[in-house]
Order: sequence, then structure tokens, then C-alpha cells
Amino acid sequence: MRLGNELIWLPPAAILIAISFAAYLVRDVLRRDTGTPEMRAVSDVIYEGAIAFLRRQYTTIALLALATAVVIGVLVGSFAHAIEVKGVTPLQFGIETAIAFLIGALLSSVSGIIAMWTAVKSNVRVAAASRYGVDKALTVALRGGAVSGFLVVALSLFGVWGLFQAFKALHGNDIAAAPFLIIGLGFGASFVALFAQLGGGIYTKAADVGADLVGKVEQGIPEDDPRNPAVIADLVGDNVGDCAGRGADLFESTVAENIGAMILGVALYRATGSEAWILLPLVLASFGIVASLAGVLVARMKNTSELPMAALNRGFFTSAALSLLFLGLTTWLMLGASWLYFFGAGVVGLVNAVAFLLITQYYTEGIYRPVKSIIDSSRPGPATYIILGLSVVFESTALPVLAIAAALSSSFALGAATAGILSVTTAVAGLFGTAVATMGMLMPAAYILAMDTFGPIADNAGGIVEMSNAPDELRAGTDALDAAGNTTKALTKGYAVGSAALAAFLLFSAYLDKVEHIVRNQQAARGATAALIEAKVRAMRVVDLGQVPVFIGALMGAMLVFLFASLAIRAVGRAAEGMITEVRRQFRADPGIMAGTSKPDYRQAVDISTRAALQQMILPGVLALTMPVAVGVILGPTAAASMLMVGTITGILVALFMNNSGGAWDNAKKYVEMGGVLDENGVALCKGSECHDAAVVGDTVGDPFKDTAGPSLHVLIKLLATLTLVMAPLFIR
Amino acid sequence: MRLGNELIWLPPAAILIAISFAAYLVRDVLRRDTGTPEMRAVSDVIYEGAIAFLRRQYTTIALLALATAVVIGVLVGSFAHAIEVKGVTPLQFGIETAIAFLIGALLSSVSGIIAMWTAVKSNVRVAAASRYGVDKALTVALRGGAVSGFLVVALSLFGVWGLFQAFKALHGNDIAAAPFLIIGLGFGASFVALFAQLGGGIYTKAADVGADLVGKVEQGIPEDDPRNPAVIADLVGDNVGDCAGRGADLFESTVAENIGAMILGVALYRATGSEAWILLPLVLASFGIVASLAGVLVARMKNTSELPMAALNRGFFTSAALSLLFLGLTTWLMLGASWLYFFGAGVVGLVNAVAFLLITQYYTEGIYRPVKSIIDSSRPGPATYIILGLSVVFESTALPVLAIAAALSSSFALGAATAGILSVTTAVAGLFGTAVATMGMLMPAAYILAMDTFGPIADNAGGIVEMSNAPDELRAGTDALDAAGNTTKALTKGYAVGSAALAAFLLFSAYLDKVEHIVRNQQAARGATAALIEAKVRAMRVVDLGQVPVFIGALMGAMLVFLFASLAIRAVGRAAEGMITEVRRQFRADPGIMAGTSKPDYRQAVDISTRAALQQMILPGVLALTMPVAVGVILGPTAAASMLMVGTITGILVALFMNNSGGAWDNAKKYVEMGGVLDENGVALCKGSECHDAAVVGDTVGDPFKDTAGPSLHVLIKLLATLTLVMAPLFIR
Repeated sequence: MRLGNELIWLPPAAILIAISFAAYLVRDVLRRDTGTPEMRAVSDVIYEGAIAFLRRQYTTIALLALATAVVIGVLVGSFAHAIEVKGVTPLQFGIETAIAFLIGALLSSVSGIIAMWTAVKSNVRVAAASRYGVDKALTVALRGGAVSGFLVVALSLFGVWGLFQAFKALHGNDIAAAPFLIIGLGFGASFVALFAQLGGGIYTKAADVGADLVGKVEQGIPEDDPRNPAVIADLVGDNVGDCAGRGADLFESTVAENIGAMILGVALYRATGSEAWILLPLVLASFGIVASLAGVLVARMKNTSELPMAALNRGFFTSAALSLLFLGLTTWLMLGASWLYFFGAGVVGLVNAVAFLLITQYYTEGIYRPVKSIIDSSRPGPATYIILGLSVVFESTALPVLAIAAALSSSFALGAATAGILSVTTAVAGLFGTAVATMGMLMPAAYILAMDTFGPIADNAGGIVEMSNAPDELRAGTDALDAAGNTTKALTKGYAVGSAALAAFLLFSAYLDKVEHIVRNQQAARGATAALIEAKVRAMRVVDLGQVPVFIGALMGAMLVFLFASLAIRAVGRAAEGMITEVRRQFRADPGIMAGTSKPDYRQAVDISTRAALQQMILPGVLALTMPVAVGVILGPTAAASMLMVGTITGILVALFMNNSGGAWDNAKKYVEMGGVLDENGVALCKGSECHDAAVVGDTVGDPFKDTAGPSLHVLIKLLATLTLVMAPLFIR
Repeated sequence: MRLGNELIWLPPAAILIAISFAAYLVRDVLRRDTGTPEMRAVSDVIYEGAIAFLRRQYTTIALLALATAVVIGVLVGSFAHAIEVKGVTPLQFGIETAIAFLIGALLSSVSGIIAMWTAVKSNVRVAAASRYGVDKALTVALRGGAVSGFLVVALSLFGVWGLFQAFKALHGNDIAAAPFLIIGLGFGASFVALFAQLGGGIYTKAADVGADLVGKVEQGIPEDDPRNPAVIADLVGDNVGDCAGRGADLFESTVAENIGAMILGVALYRATGSEAWILLPLVLASFGIVASLAGVLVARMKNTSELPMAALNRGFFTSAALSLLFLGLTTWLMLGASWLYFFGAGVVGLVNAVAFLLITQYYTEGIYRPVKSIIDSSRPGPATYIILGLSVVFESTALPVLAIAAALSSSFALGAATAGILSVTTAVAGLFGTAVATMGMLMPAAYILAMDTFGPIADNAGGIVEMSNAPDELRAGTDALDAAGNTTKALTKGYAVGSAALAAFLLFSAYLDKVEHIVRNQQAARGATAALIEAKVRAMRVVDLGQVPVFIGALMGAMLVFLFASLAIRAVGRAAEGMITEVRRQFRADPGIMAGTSKPDYRQAVDISTRAALQQMILPGVLALTMPVAVGVILGPTAAASMLMVGTITGILVALFMNNSGGAWDNAKKYVEMGGVLDENGVALCKGSECHDAAVVGDTVGDPFKDTAGPSLHVLIKLLATLTLVMAPLFIR
């Protein structure tokens, strides 16, 4: 039995399930106890700050998106001199691409806003629940986080499925043309992800650095102290960076991966006549939602003494196991004789997901060799601490790269083995193998995202407990959740890089498929002979690094990553400067703040962070959007391809470097502060001493790395892919 | 008039001139005043430490090189199943490659050892000369440095010219085959450069960190204080890193570039029948020696109040102007109708040299925007200082990359324009254009290297003045020279990266030429048809990033750079730990050291640095040597090519990042320490305060970056090229 087109109704069913589940979770969370009046008071200020930021940020993004949609419509509409899709005029194509772009941007924004809203509504309820036990608090925090996870995945699937159906219907039910028409959706998602991640990342670190530097260092008051004018901005920041930012990031991943895989599926559809190859990504994403749902329901602490991370891991492995089951079922139902190979490729993807989680844990947790060796190196002094820390962080890029290489080559080999069965080239079959691996890796995305958003909710709950003068036992409970949240945030970043890396190859190929598609139609329209068309296509499909323009494209790709990182980090520095000045001003203007007799002006600090973040996100954003187009237009489509590929490789390494440095130094500092470094005689070293300073500096350096530049680089990698996909017509003469 | 083979006697003449000039300089320096008995005493201990290190280091390198030569001989001899060069048996080929390797290693070692020896003989004479004026001291220091510069360039030219002549004579005067036979020489040079730079880099930073951390920070004694047990090791370190290391680096550059350009010249020789294309690199290198010689003679301070850097710049621009003249003359004499285009390409290379010097100065000197902005950011506090510093350093990679892209594309276009005149493809003509650009850039290499070695000599002279209790005015003079030396050291690193980047493309092409060469001979020997041979060759010459193995090769290349950087930095940390422990032990064991009543045991500290450096250089060295071979053997010759190319791109960016971070943070710290950061009221901020700590941390982080990892990465880039060139037969089945 081989199913194909019948399964086109599975995605809407899964979308309905996901949205209903999210709605249920929202109701469930909202009807819970909101704690003491003090807690509510703190939470209200966070809510207000978050909403103020969201309103301004998404207004800015909406304006930018509208302007960009017009530019896309005009450029694609007028430069698509070639007939990209038969029967579609260039003007129509430009308008439809612009509409798809706007829908992608809108859906990404909506899922980001609702997720943030739920997160800032959940935090106080987690704080309140912690009075009845940390296990209760975990359930509330995870459910709050799951709203984000399920909405992101559901709306992403909705966008792809809905536009696919709409454009198919609009253009004579041509199932093979439709995937090329919805590419704009992926770019819209990337566009919002870029600015959401940049704006959120800059905001959160500017607030954090401002709060720490003036509050903790200069005034000597503890973390989350209510006297600190920047404390609310700091708590708001945790949400806008980790919740809205990462949500947009994975929204983009799933959209881009689905579209890219569908484009690759077209070649197999043409060879076999089965729609299954085009629909497979949508069906697997649907089952991924169900698997994630089970994970969320299972992830409960058995009792208050179980480690929070153990419960969260149980949920993850449940999702992964169910994903495996569904993967087997789907490939068996849909792919006929070749199913076992593609099932194998999907398993490779799932294994890669687990590998990335384990490797990230290994390099950022205090109990393994890498962070331990950083901590140990604090004994001779701060210099060796920083030097060995950097060494560990450079090293931490190696295992993930090996994992990607292994996943890529084995899934390609598994796919290629079906070339005989399917009567296609090994390249086409092998590429689809890597696509299925990416689908497998992204199946548990909703659960991973739930774990991620759990992080800022738990962090905020801790802040609320601290600021509302609740008993110390509560803080211990929320601290345990916060520690688990730090882990899940780091893991999600690893997962996001890993899936971006695996998806990258599939997106390159989709880009080359699109270039081929354009060249064929263009040359046919110009009346070229078949031989000439084949020669042109062959030349366009080869990304030969031995050619000067292609090599220069590669150089530019690597350089873009470094320059973008520079601008993102600088943006944090500039925004932090404003924050520091404001906090100092408040302390100077009103000595009652430190005395505790008058309240600081939290709103002013929030406002400054908001404005600075939005101002500073523009320059890196514009660079990321214009440079690839400039390279493509000046140096041609193969140079754009090599920019995309080498930019992705460099981007993966630098992103891993950034994410892991932040995570490792953060945990090393925590260990040093707990007095965990002992000298030969067992006396605690380092606390309050010079190597503590080194630990603080490491943490400070790592902060904008892990929360601004690193995550923005994941987004940049995918933006490169979707941007070049949409702009390809401009590159071909 | 077109000259070709007549000019084969120009290189030996230039080599003679260079060696005579170096001998004259050695005599001139040695017969100068050696100062006070105190100065001589200090200098003797430095000399002794340096010689001890040299002896052990080069013994280790010699053993490693002998073992590697055997491995090369066996592997190349037995795996060269194909007849690489007609009429040469595989066994013969293996033996000759091994011999060429050993000669390359020997010549590089000899030039390194003599250069170091002269440098440690010069330092005390510079210290003594400073009593008669800083202008006199500059002349001595530059002459001491020039010994290194001229020997390195002369011996490199001698190696290439001599082996070329020898192998040509040995194999029936086949001028087209000879360039392929001397590739082993380049690998020998790379091999020694790798270990010289790694060992020297680790030694110098371990000693520096050890001396600073225990001496300056813990005991509060000034830099270069004779009570510090690590002070001599620190002074020795300046020589082994900057003098021997950079010398080996540029030795390797000139050897690899000459061989690569000669291989590219073979195609033009075949098309035109003129030997000029093969001999051009040797002739230009010969004239470069003369141009550099004039530069050294001109670089004198007009009076004691002129800035040392002004005199050194005068020398550089004299060398560059003469190089331009010789470039015009040579191309006009040798290249016939196409000369003007290739002259243009050579000018592009010279301009690129100047551009790299200017860009490096811009990003590392305190008077320009980048370092100024780092210094300014110390006002809000250490966090913004570090964050903005990193931002500047990431940014600093952009302009150099643009310069390389511009140089590469314009020199390729100039070369390609001659395709019609020469009746070759645009690829062959264009590539030779990039080769001529590289030759142009490397013409003033001897002068640049003289400026570079000037650095550690001036630095050591300052140390000797300080330690011999000479009057303070002397220290002011040597400080001025030291500051100029810091600049020239940074510039040389920029120049080394720039020339490595420009040479890279030419070396890729030489590698692909060699692969083609092997495949052709192999297939012909197997009796393949002409059509089959062409198909095979076409497949091997295309480095298509869209193929999975090629993409994985690219991933591995980028990863190798990060992993190698990790190991190099870790080596410094580990070696520094040993040094710190030893210095602390001496201070504890003998309180008389701090009191100034007993002398510390300098030798013990030198010994520990030496042993640690040699131990720690092995692991990164072995990684660099084995990983590319493993990739080539497992994934094939095109994957090896993409590893080489993307490894080079990533290596250039990371090396620029490392070099510039060290330079910028070093100068920023100097400015902060001079009390140059003022608050709104004009009061000096930062000195001795928290942001001074940040400045120190920045400097500490930057130190192993700029002196160990960065320079080792230049070497790695070229090693990748020469290693794959030599090992190519192993990759082809």
C-alpha cells in the first residue's frame, strides 16, 4: 500500500490538535493561582515592559517587512525576465512572492507575540506554584513554555501547507510548481527571525550588563534586587531573547526545511509519479507535533526530590521515541520499496538531534572535563583561566562538525542506495536522504522549544520570588528550575545550530534546483537548443571553488559572518552604554533608591533598552540582507551559492564558538562563586579574589556571544538560504 | 627583445649579493661596542638561553623531519602507482621528494639559527649604541634584523633555484617537469616553519605570562626586573617567537610561492615555448633582494628627534618603489607583447602589500578610530571594554578580505586579458596574473623581515638597559625603538597573512595542475582513450561544493582551523602553568631573591619553558600534518582541495582576528596605563582601577592569540597547500 495525496489532510488535523492543545495550556495556566499581591505587582511590571517592547519591536518589524515586501515584489516581478514557473507571468510571480513573504512574516510574528504573552503570564503562576512544591512549579513552567512550542510549529506548518494548497489551486493543480511558489514564505519567516533575534538579543544583554555592572559591581547589591532600576528590564530581556527570539529561529528552520525538502521532492515526483515525495515533509511534521505533545504530558517530576532535568529529559526521550515510531510508519506507508532506506536516513537525523544535545551538555556543564578544566585553570590565576577557556571553546566546535559530517554522509549514502529502485540519479536520491534526515531531526521541535521557553519562565519566576520578599525556601526551588532552564536554553541553541547545519545542504540544493529551473525555462523561452540548455544548466549547477568569482563569493561568505558578529556584539556594547548611564543617573538623582525608601523608575530603564535595541538592530540586519544580494548580482549565481555554502560553514563554527563560550563560562563562574575551587589544602580559593574577577570577565565576554551574536548567526545562516532562493532571478542574466 | 633562459644566472648572483651583504652586516654588528660589563652579563645569559633553546628545538625538529622524510619517501614512492613525471620511476620520485623535503627543512633551519644567533648578538650592541643616541641604536638594530631578512630570502631562493637546476640536469633537461619535482622542498620548509612557529610561539607566551603574572601581578615588581626568575626566559622568548618563527614563516611563503608560480608557468611555457614563464618568479625574487638592500641602507634616522617609524617607513617605501621599477623592467624584458598586463598584475601585488600594512596599522595603532573606540569604551567599565574590543576585532577582518578579493580579481582579469595574445585559455592566463601579483607582493620580503626582526632586538636591548641599571635616558631611547618594533611586528604579521592569502589561490591551482598531471599520466599508462582521459581530468579539476564529499572536506578544513587554534592556545596555557609554578617556587624557596641579595636561577626557568614548549608543540603539529592526509585518502582529491580552500579562507579570517586582537588590546592597555583615559572633568580614569584590570585581561587574552595561534595559522595555511601538493598521489586511485 502506498499513500500519497490522501495524506494532504493530515497536516490540518495536526495543526488543529496543536492549536487546541496550546489553547488548553493557556487556559490551564491562566486559571492557576497568581500568588501574593507582591508577586503580582512585580509580574505586572514585567508584563507591562514586555508588552511595551513587543509593541514597538513588532511595529518596527512590520514597517520594515512592508517596505521589503514592496521591494521584493518589484525586483522579483521585473527581474524575473525568465518565466520561472510555466503559466505564471513575472508580475504575478512578483506579487505572489511578496504575499507569501508577508504571510511568513505575519505568522512568525503572531506566534512570537502569543508565546511571549503566555510566558509573561506564566512566570508569576510558576512563582506561586513553587509554594506547593518545585514539581508543581515545573509543570506550570513547562506548560507555559509548550504554548510557544506548539504555536510556532503549528503556524509554520499552517503557512507551508496553506500556501501550498492555495497556490496549487491557483495554478491549475500543478503540484510540481507549487513548492517553488511558496519560497517567499521562508524568506518572510527568516526576515522576522533576524530582527526578532537581533532586537531581543541586544535588548536582553544590554539590560543584563547594565543591571549587573552598576547594580552588582558598583553598588554591591545582589542579582534581581528590587532597588536596581534595570532589574525589570533584565527580566523582560530573558523573555524577548530566549522566548520570542528562539521561537522565530525554529519557526524559520521548520518553514525553510519543509519548503526545501518539497523542492527536492519534485524531482522524485517527476521520476516516480507519486506525490508522496512532495508531501512527506508535511506529514512527518504533523506526526512530530503528536510526538511532542506526548513528551510534554510525560515530563512531570515524580516527586519534589527528583532533578528537574531528569523529568525534562524523560519528556524529550518520549518525544524522540514516538518520532522514531511515526517515522517508520510514515516512510513505510508512503515510500514503497525504498522506505527502509529513508527510514534509516530519518533515524540518522533523530540520532543527530540526540548527539547535539549530548555534545552541548558535555561542553557547557560543570560536571564534565571541558568546564572542569576551565575551572581548574583558575588556580594559577586569571590569565590561564581565560586562555584555557578559549582553548576549550575553540575545541568545542570539532565534535559537532564531525556529527554533521557523519549525519550528512550517511543519510546521503542511504538515500543514494535507492537510486536503482526509484530510477533516478544517486544525487537526487541521496539529497532526498539528507532531507529526510533533517525532517527526522526537526520532528521533536515543538518539545525542544517548550523546554527552551521553560528557561525564561523559570528565570522570571525566580526573579519574582526574589523581588517579592518571599521565603528563602521558595528561592531554592526556583533556583533549581532556573539551573535546569539554563541547561535547556543551551541545549536548544545546540539543536538549532545542528538542524540549521543539516538543513543547509538541502537548502543549497534547493537553490541550485531553482537556478536550474529558471535557466531551463529562460533558455527554452529564448528558443535555445536542448544541447545548449543542458550546457548552461551544467555550468550553473557546479559551484567550483577553483573559479575566481566563486572563490571570492566564498571569501565574502566567511567575511559576512565575522562582520555580522562584529556588528551584533557592538550593538550590545552601545545599547549597554545607554543603560549603564541611565542606571547610574537614577542612583545619583535619588539616594532614596539605595536606601529602599523610594522605588526606582523601572519604566525609564525598560524604555531605554527598548529604543537602543531597536536602533542597534538595523545595521547588522541591513548588512545581512544586502550583502548576499550584492554578491549574487555582481558575481553571479554560482558565486552566490558559494557565499551561501562557505558562509554557512563559517557561521556554524562561529555560532558554536559563541554559544558554547557563553554556556561554559557562565557555568564555570557559578562553580567558582559557590566556592568550588579548592587549593592543595582544601581551602576554597578564588571566591572574591582575582580569579573570581577572571570568572566574571569570562562570563561577561560570553554573554553577548551566547545570547546575541550566536543565536543571530543561526538565523543568518538560514536567512542566507531563503534570501538567495527568493532573489535567484536577479542573479541570472 | 625577449629574454628567457639567459636569466637563469641572475638568481645565483642575487643569492651571492644577499649572502655577502648579510656577512657584511654580521661583521659590522659584531665589531661594535658591547657596552658595560653589566650589559654584557645580561646579554650573555640571554644568549645562553637562546642557544640552549635553539639546540633542543632544532634537534627535535631534525628528528621529526628525518622520520617524516622516510614516511614521505615510502608513501610517495609506493603510492605513486601512477607515473607522475615521465621517465622517473615511483621509487626515484619518492627518494627525490624526500631529499627535496630534507633540503627545504635544512635550509629553513639554517636561516632560522643564523638569524637568531645574530639577533641575540645584536641586542647588547643596540643597548650600548643607545648611549650615543637613538639613531645609532636604530641602525644597529635594523642591521641585526636585516641579517635574518636577507638570509631567509637568499636561502629560499637558493633552494628553489638549486634544486630546479639539479633535477632539470638529472632528468634530461626537461624544464617543464622540473617544477613538479621540487615540490618536496616547499613541504620541508612548511614542516620546519610549523614547528619553529609553534615551539617559538608557545615558548615566548609561556615565559611572558609566567613573568608577568607572578612578577608584575603577585610580587608587584616592574617589567624586566632582574629579580624575576622568568625575565631571561621572557627576553629569549621574544627572539624565538618573532625572529626564528616569522623567518621560517616567510621562508615557507617565498618557497611555496616560487614553486607554485613555476608550476603555473609550465602551461604557458608549453603554449608559447618561452622559458620566461617558468623562470619569472626566480628573476623577480632576485630583484626583490636588491630592492630590499637599498631599503635597509636608506632606513636611517636623520637625527635623534625623528620618529624611528618614519625612518623605517622610508626604507620600506624605497624598497617598494625599486621593486616597482624592477617589476616593470623584468616583465618588459621577459614577457613580450603581454608584459604591460603582467606588470599591472605585479603592481596590484605591491599595492596589496601597502594596503595590508596600512590596514594593520589602522586596526592596531592607538591613534585611529578602532583602538580609540576600545579605549573609550573603558569609561562605562570593564564589561563594555571587552565587548567593544571583540567587536572591533571581528570587524578588523573585513577590509583585509576585501583587499584580497580586489587584488585577486583584478590581477586575474589583467592576466586573462592576455589570453588572446598568448593563445591560452583565460583560466591559464588569469591564474598567472594572480601568480605575478603574489610575486610583486613578496618582492620586498627581505626588507619586511628585517623590520620584523628589528622588533625583538629592540625589545631585548630595552630589557638589557633595564636590567643593567643603566641611566633612565637610555631606557627612553630603547622604549622608542621598542614601540616602533611592536608596530613592525604587527605589520609583518599582516603582510604574512596577506601574502599567504594571495598565494593561496595560486597554490590551489598548482595542486589541481598536479592532480591533472598525475591523472593524465596514470590513465595514459593504463591505456585509456583520449576521451576518457579528458572526462577524468575534467571531473578531478572541479571542486564542486554541491557534492557531499567536497562539502564535508570544506567543513573539515574550517574545523581544522578551529581545532588547531584550540590546541595552540591550550599549549600556551599548559606551558605557562609550569612556568608560574617554577617562578613561585623560586620566590618561596629563596626570600633573598626579592630582597635583591641573591640571584634567581634564570637557567632553570629557561629550561622549563624550553621543555614545555617542545612537548606542547607536538600535538597541534601532528594534527595539522595528519588530518589533511586523512581527508584526502578517505574522501579523494577534490575533497582535499576543498579542505585546502575553505581551510585557507577560515584560516585567514581567524588569523587576522587573532593577530589584530593581540595588537589592538596591547596598544589599548599601554594607553590606559599611561593614564590617557580621562573622565568628563579631565581627571585620569582607569589607571590602577577596574578598567585597568579589564585592559590587562584584554592584553592577556590577546597575547597567545597574536604570538602563538595567529602566526601558527599563517603557517598552517601554507602547510595545507604544500602537504596536499606532496601527498596528492595518495589521494588518487
